[in-house]
Amino acid sequence: MSSSESAEAPAVSKKAAKKEAAKAEKLRRRMEEASISISAAAQAAEQENDPLSANYGDAPLSELQSKSEVDFPYTEVGSLAEHLKDQVVLVRGRAQTIRAVGKKMAFLVVRERGFTVQVVVTEQADVVSRQMVKYVAALNRESIIDVEGIVSVPAEPIKGASQKVEIQVRKLYCISRAVPTLPINLEDAARSEAEIQRALEAKEPVVRVNQDTRLNNRVLDMRTPANQGIFRIQSQVGNIFRQFLLSEGFVEIHTPKLIAGSSEGGSAVFKLDYKGQPACLAQSPQLHKQMSICGDFGRVFEIGPVFRAEDSYTHRHLCEFTGLDVEMEIKKHYSEVMDIVDRLFVAMFDSLNEKCKKELEAVGRQYPFEPLKYLRKTLRLTFEEGVQMLKDTGVEIDPLGDLNTESERKLGQLVLEKYGTEFYILHRYPLAVRPFYTMPCYDNPAYSNSFDVFIRGEEIISGAQRVHVPELLAERAQACGIDVNTISSYIDSFRYGAPPHGGFGVGLERVVMLFCGLNNIRKTSLYPRDPLRITP
Amino acid sequence: MSSSESAEAPAVSKKAAKKEAAKAEKLRRRMEEASISISAAAQAAEQENDPLSANYGDAPLSELQSKSEVDFPYTEVGSLAEHLKDQVVLVRGRAQTIRAVGKKMAFLVVRERGFTVQVVVTEQADVVSRQMVKYVAALNRESIIDVEGIVSVPAEPIKGASQKVEIQVRKLYCISRAVPTLPINLEDAARSEAEIQRALEAKEPVVRVNQDTRLNNRVLDMRTPANQGIFRIQSQVGNIFRQFLLSEGFVEIHTPKLIAGSSEGGSAVFKLDYKGQPACLAQSPQLHKQMSICGDFGRVFEIGPVFRAEDSYTHRHLCEFTGLDVEMEIKKHYSEVMDIVDRLFVAMFDSLNEKCKKELEAVGRQYPFEPLKYLRKTLRLTFEEGVQMLKDTGVEIDPLGDLNTESERKLGQLVLEKYGTEFYILHRYPLAVRPFYTMPCYDNPAYSNSFDVFIRGEEIISGAQRVHVPELLAERAQACGIDVNTISSYIDSFRYGAPPHGGFGVGLERVVMLFCGLNNIRKTSLYPRDPLRITP
Repeated sequence: MSSSESAEAPAVSKKAAKKEAAKAEKLRRRMEEASISISAAAQAAEQENDPLSANYGDAPLSELQSKSEVDFPYTEVGSLAEHLKDQVVLVRGRAQTIRAVGKKMAFLVVRERGFTVQVVVTEQADVVSRQMVKYVAALNRESIIDVEGIVSVPAEPIKGASQKVEIQVRKLYCISRAVPTLPINLEDAARSEAEIQRALEAKEPVVRVNQDTRLNNRVLDMRTPANQGIFRIQSQVGNIFRQFLLSEGFVEIHTPKLIAGSSEGGSAVFKLDYKGQPACLAQSPQLHKQMSICGDFGRVFEIGPVFRAEDSYTHRHLCEFTGLDVEMEIKKHYSEVMDIVDRLFVAMFDSLNEKCKKELEAVGRQYPFEPLKYLRKTLRLTFEEGVQMLKDTGVEIDPLGDLNTESERKLGQLVLEKYGTEFYILHRYPLAVRPFYTMPCYDNPAYSNSFDVFIRGEEIISGAQRVHVPELLAERAQACGIDVNTISSYIDSFRYGAPPHGGFGVGLERVVMLFCGLNNIRKTSLYPRDPLRITP
Repeated sequence: MSSSESAEAPAVSKKAAKKEAAKAEKLRRRMEEASISISAAAQAAEQENDPLSANYGDAPLSELQSKSEVDFPYTEVGSLAEHLKDQVVLVRGRAQTIRAVGKKMAFLVVRERGFTVQVVVTEQADVVSRQMVKYVAALNRESIIDVEGIVSVPAEPIKGASQKVEIQVRKLYCISRAVPTLPINLEDAARSEAEIQRALEAKEPVVRVNQDTRLNNRVLDMRTPANQGIFRIQSQVGNIFRQFLLSEGFVEIHTPKLIAGSSEGGSAVFKLDYKGQPACLAQSPQLHKQMSICGDFGRVFEIGPVFRAEDSYTHRHLCEFTGLDVEMEIKKHYSEVMDIVDRLFVAMFDSLNEKCKKELEAVGRQYPFEPLKYLRKTLRLTFEEGVQMLKDTGVEIDPLGDLNTESERKLGQLVLEKYGTEFYILHRYPLAVRPFYTMPCYDNPAYSNSFDVFIRGEEIISGAQRVHVPELLAERAQACGIDVNTISSYIDSFRYGAPPHGGFGVGLERVVMLFCGLNNIRKTSLYPRDPLRITP
């Protein structure tokens, strides 16, 4: 069960295996035949008459099947610089743009992991034939190529490439050919709204790639500098989250996503049949992370998928997202949990600003945003204070209800004006708007020991002290309309001595979206799932 | 959608919110009444006659509802040492054992995160009353208590506690009372097989807690030193995996677990209805991690749940486990992938041995095992060499079939004898026993550019170079009986220029199981899921 592959390896009998081997042999012959396709044949014919034909061409499949190991080291495009002047380098990347200048010269921009270099192919006796220039000029964009050449430093600085040097090509092979017409062009996908507007105003033709087209062709869309930045930032958010918590004595756990019955109840769950038993996908690791606290792990966290079958068609809801969950013993007060939130996120924002400069710039070029404003010590307001601030500006809301999206935004504005921060904690929420496992306040059970955290006027974190007294927990569950029988093993967990505890949950995609001021959660999910989308 | 809590917060109207608040108020009154239960009433009566009654007792619920913040710092049990002699400390932990000596004295062992300290309650004028000793003696095991007292260093070293000092109690409060009869006793759950055998031979009464009883009461079972060790080791495995890969330029990704159609096909999948569309749970992130390579991330990894609806009742199969998945561009040869496996796992084993000493010892006390034998540079054998080694000892297996569990074990023994390692790579597997996306060998398509990795004679990793040529991929899928239409967006991903690439997958639970020489995968899954178990 360990690996992706082993699941696929069918138990094959001796006979079947031999049959399979024979099939594979046939397959090989067919592949050899197939590789002499029309264009390849034409190319081959052309190359036949070229004494320099060994210097270029499509790499045959067999060369790409681990025939040999690396004998000449590859240089990363991102590390090409002046100190390599006059040296021979070998580079693998994508032909981002291809431009022929007459029949004797062609320019390529080759891209690797977001870095680009200009590559020059010039007819040259004994090295580059005119046929080779023609071959290069006919390459399809986004094809993967191997380029061998000499590094040169041009007199004029190069525009349109990240690296300041050029490669004067000696050999060039196509490793993987892209189809001639791509479903979306990368320049189109990478264009900012401001550029589109400029073009429209100038009445120039311009393509705007809409969200669905992007997502339908995610593999191409992913290659834009902004998307390369977004998902590298996302990787860093997860990394900082974990490193911070591990350094504070938290243990990483993995709780099951397959749950008997109907998870925590309440909102819509994805149901399935589990070996004849009714089951569902976990809406959060809530119950299991609390049980792990009862199991003496003291402080735990989990990063994992969370499933919500809700029919939400907003800019910030997905049916599957990555939850960052924390649960910890508390000694006295839920402020201990808010302290962790405070220090964790300040450390995260600091680190992103410091370590992801290039990525943030890349995102900002396509989707301009202001850096997040946050304080060294995170502002904490009570829900009542928030309601009062809204009231003072004439916005009346139910003091025992929840904030809606509009009032959240409004309060965010007021907080920014008054305290100069776009990141703050609102705590002591009304009990009625929190889940059943939330601990009521000691002095007023209409309120609860809970909090939400906001970035740029949108909620990203919810947290609370939990009820650790089994009788009260059962009573609260029942009051919230949950069948206590379906969560009996959860409630029983608190009967064997349970420490007071609390925790919080964050959506990874939302953190990245709001930190970068993006307008849609689908931009920060690699393969988003919403009520209308389950592919690719 | 960001948090666990927000899913639960129902959209409540003003009126409903007020009704809810009124209910909460009623609830509070009921809780106050309820807290005067019979035993509590008896305790209260006893305490009424005790002028020192403020020094002990059950903490009232309101005290545990974030009434105040920490004013006197808690000391962790694990940090109690001689330098604290004569100082007042406050400790929170579980009453692991409680023993009264006459009416004037009681001894407790208090446990916190695996560390234990002896706590002494002695009748003493103006501090500890006889009623307090009685109260302490009547506590239930595993209850959470707060202990305030003075650190003393006993003349005789303490047996049965990890810390070398004692606490002379001045105040003691019960924070959370455990039920008097626990479903399993921790001493029973922590007993090694050797101890059980000794007791049986001595005809002493002894309880062996079987696997199902443990798992049914996982919250208690988790508290044993071995289990505390196992899951802290598991957390460290994940940490090293990520830190190593991040340092090598890998990007962490999160791919969807909800998949249209039937995932990679082949083995049994969990099916569900996704908003009216047939869907299933991903059997691995295989297709999406490869697509992310086509999307230019270069090197990616993912840690996440993997779902297998197989009817496997073995010691090493689960229906849900944590997959550690890697995918990377390769320049020339799948040995580049094996190089990563080699360095990653050697670094992991080194780090576990160094950083998890205490945890490994704790596991070993209950489940004795020999430290894993591994080489600085991991041994690589071809499948053909493996078959030959088996043949040389008289074990005949199909040279184009797969190894079964028995031959894997046998080969593990032979490799250990010949090369002195329990960790090695077997590569160039027959194509027929590998999944459709495996790249055939350039020189013999009966074999493939693939590998398995073994620990202690059991497979833990599978990896390979993948087919990056869309025509060949479609042909291989078809040959393996997969409906190409269901994976068209996957196959299309390779039409826009695809770098040669490879990767591997590992099961987290299996790594921990085999590194620690454990005999069942259920021991290394916090809440295991198998065909018969979907709780707790």
